[in-house]
Amino acid sequence: MSFDPATLRYNDQGLIPCIAQDEEGGVLMLAWMNAEAVAQTLETGRVTYWSRSRKAFWVKGETSGHLQELVDLRVDCDRDCLLAIVRQTGPACHTNRRSCFYTAIREGTEVELMAPVDQ
Amino acid sequence: MSFDPATLRYNDQGLIPCIAQDEEGGVLMLAWMNAEAVAQTLETGRVTYWSRSRKAFWVKGETSGHLQELVDLRVDCDRDCLLAIVRQTGPACHTNRRSCFYTAIREGTEVELMAPVDQ
Repeated sequence: MSFDPATLRYNDQGLIPCIAQDEEGGVLMLAWMNAEAVAQTLETGRVTYWSRSRKAFWVKGETSGHLQELVDLRVDCDRDCLLAIVRQTGPACHTNRRSCFYTAIREGTEVELMAPVDQ
Repeated sequence: MSFDPATLRYNDQGLIPCIAQDEEGGVLMLAWMNAEAVAQTLETGRVTYWSRSRKAFWVKGETSGHLQELVDLRVDCDRDCLLAIVRQTGPACHTNRRSCFYTAIREGTEVELMAPVDQ
């Protein structure tokens, strides 16, 4: 079945969440796409989100160099969430950590699991 | 630092997305929690979402038996997304597939990667 980004289910702001996971299985981040960002990601092979704060397309790594090269894009059963398998250059997180999910909640306490990567 | 679910950033419906990933690295699903569901998940060790369609707490697997036992809960850098590492009993998807992300988009076409599990 041919794919049309318009067939995904977007929220009332026209956005769908996209999880980025590296090829080794690490979940790196979650960000949002609109239909045009989904189309651009597929066309260019560079994962492109929609920045809700800047209200602009956000080619991941365009300024930092920490690009996400698309390996595979998956849609969930409800068509309201995406999973991008990516080849991540450098850290995915703006704090210079590999993943944005570097804080665990253990026994009621926040524990930091990952240090920033040296640049 | 002690953890308080009220310190997370919820959307205008009071919800935060939570990604469920199994211990082997497979991303299983994404669903939503409110602050009380986050607290219940941590207290009970059973991943508990907020069902947006039913407007009710949804202890994953309570009716199907396909429980998600919490192994570790992580918060992202912006505190607006959660990652639950889980021990998943049976399929996570209501279609009886291991993961909800069973459809890939390859060369403009939707490709099914996973068949339903025999029950």
